[in-house]
Amino acid sequence: MLERFKVPEKDRVYVDADEMRSATEAIFLAMGLSDEDAVLSADVLMTNDLRGVETHGVSNTLRGYVGRYRDGGMNPTPEITIERESDSTAVLDGGGGLGLHVAPRAMDMAVEKARKFGMGAVCVHNVGHMGGSGYHAMRASNQDMIGVAMTTSGSLSTVPTFGGEPKFGTNPIAYAVPAGEMPNFVFDVGTSQIAGNKVRLLERIGAGIMPGWLAEPDGTPIMEEGPLPDSHHMLPIGGTREQGSHKGYGFTAVIDILASTLTGIGPGFLALTPGFHLTAYNIDSFTDLAKFKSDMDDFLTALVETPPAPPHERVVYAGLLEAEETEKRTAEGIPYHREVIGWFRTIEVELGLDFSFT
Amino acid sequence: MLERFKVPEKDRVYVDADEMRSATEAIFLAMGLSDEDAVLSADVLMTNDLRGVETHGVSNTLRGYVGRYRDGGMNPTPEITIERESDSTAVLDGGGGLGLHVAPRAMDMAVEKARKFGMGAVCVHNVGHMGGSGYHAMRASNQDMIGVAMTTSGSLSTVPTFGGEPKFGTNPIAYAVPAGEMPNFVFDVGTSQIAGNKVRLLERIGAGIMPGWLAEPDGTPIMEEGPLPDSHHMLPIGGTREQGSHKGYGFTAVIDILASTLTGIGPGFLALTPGFHLTAYNIDSFTDLAKFKSDMDDFLTALVETPPAPPHERVVYAGLLEAEETEKRTAEGIPYHREVIGWFRTIEVELGLDFSFT
Repeated sequence: MLERFKVPEKDRVYVDADEMRSATEAIFLAMGLSDEDAVLSADVLMTNDLRGVETHGVSNTLRGYVGRYRDGGMNPTPEITIERESDSTAVLDGGGGLGLHVAPRAMDMAVEKARKFGMGAVCVHNVGHMGGSGYHAMRASNQDMIGVAMTTSGSLSTVPTFGGEPKFGTNPIAYAVPAGEMPNFVFDVGTSQIAGNKVRLLERIGAGIMPGWLAEPDGTPIMEEGPLPDSHHMLPIGGTREQGSHKGYGFTAVIDILASTLTGIGPGFLALTPGFHLTAYNIDSFTDLAKFKSDMDDFLTALVETPPAPPHERVVYAGLLEAEETEKRTAEGIPYHREVIGWFRTIEVELGLDFSFT
Repeated sequence: MLERFKVPEKDRVYVDADEMRSATEAIFLAMGLSDEDAVLSADVLMTNDLRGVETHGVSNTLRGYVGRYRDGGMNPTPEITIERESDSTAVLDGGGGLGLHVAPRAMDMAVEKARKFGMGAVCVHNVGHMGGSGYHAMRASNQDMIGVAMTTSGSLSTVPTFGGEPKFGTNPIAYAVPAGEMPNFVFDVGTSQIAGNKVRLLERIGAGIMPGWLAEPDGTPIMEEGPLPDSHHMLPIGGTREQGSHKGYGFTAVIDILASTLTGIGPGFLALTPGFHLTAYNIDSFTDLAKFKSDMDDFLTALVETPPAPPHERVVYAGLLEAEETEKRTAEGIPYHREVIGWFRTIEVELGLDFSFT
């Protein structure tokens, strides 16, 4: 993440990861989830927080989930059913449950299919937010497969290139690939120029936008650095046509097709509810797994050893900083904004829970 | 394509598509290809030229292919063998043949697997250039499947974000998705900020570069508009970190992994020879095909009907302009640079052929 997205030093409260995990599990249990689903849901958020992906950790998402459970918009005990299935594919009805714990089941099904048939692709609809696509792709890479996770957002924020009206969510995609000695490759991005939750982060920490990050309400890219405008749309990756936004627009459209239309619920902007597409590749069906992982080590090592362009100090790859951050945050605790801890203290009282933040 | 990539009016020679197709087939036959492979190879290049994808038509590529056949670097009669196979996956040895005619065989195999098992993914190594990934993805969409084609480039041009040394080719990817009444969605891009062949186009037509398109030899993004520098590297989609180049870098790395490392030949920058990854999704294994195509029509129609941001006149989607161009060029002929026609006249004499350009 760019520096401007980080919680300012003065607002940081460090919390031990295990303590925050217990608090988060307790909240999910209080919402009516089964033990297993509460553990799984908290694991998604805590994995994100440990990796420094705070856009998809407890800060930005948990109070929204609680709101959805409270107003009956999310089913805490969903029944997941298979709508259509072939050897290597399936479409699931998620039973109106939160994606945090439904998506891992779908990915496990994809992994199982890949183990038997070489590949597996499982789509899900009637499901809530997956809480960041990276975790779900990593569920496959943790089982020595290549994992891909895509989701539509269920909301409209991003304009097509040259468009003056949003037709997409931020439509994220993640690829996770196992390596041997090096930290795994985990590429996890929104296909909008900046992620939706990053806009909320900017709001909370009072930082401004860079040129080409957002568009005016009429779709014109904002090309001046400045404060976050109240009214705006998101742009596809690249920002402007000259900087490649037609490529970002294309990737956004692809995710919309594979995660929404292919799922049977129509295009994302008509469905207005999330759809998932989860894929697993059984590496051993293509090449020798041990050789592949050793090749990945060569690949990632060479990237890290690329001489940096001035004035940069190092070249990294997707997943490396997150692996370093996980180590650091496991040892030192996770820096949350004090406003977030304030919310935990409120919900603790409201739900009659007891969080042991030290 | 941006206006600056088009052949200037004064340098255009219009040639009938069928006449150029015959000339191209004759050249491939003279290189020793079978009738079927010559027809297939010419079809790739002519489809690109008709769609206005002149970066991958006869102009930029054919003389290079002829050179490779003449110096023995490409096998005109390759034997394609299966190295590893599962129900939904395979890895092929392309026998040292040109990707133009080897990739369609691999995609047909992926389509066949998808028809039986829901999905198919086929990798190829020991193979030459595929001549643009769009054609090969379209081979699946023309059979009512979703097609994906990726390839590594076999050469080094693109730096990682913050890197001062190229570690990737332009690593293109294409997705083709069938619609009903609307022209199919065909998204076909390099994951570098501009395609490698576009740089050669800029050279030929004498146009300059935009800020953020290329990097200095030390990896620093060139942020001034100006003439094409002699010495430069390519940047990933986004150009600079602030404009999202880490996302372009990630997609480039993913293609490298799926098309090169997964193929068993190691990372692209070590293999230094192209690798392919071709995927087909059997739509009917996920949802009703007729409904899907009708949903695609709704999707694409809504994109086209998005109110444009000022001062733009229309919003398009990937594949629409190319479908319009195909109609126009089929009727009016294809505009080639006169220098390209000069090359055809030379090779015609050298090979003792007879081209009927009118």
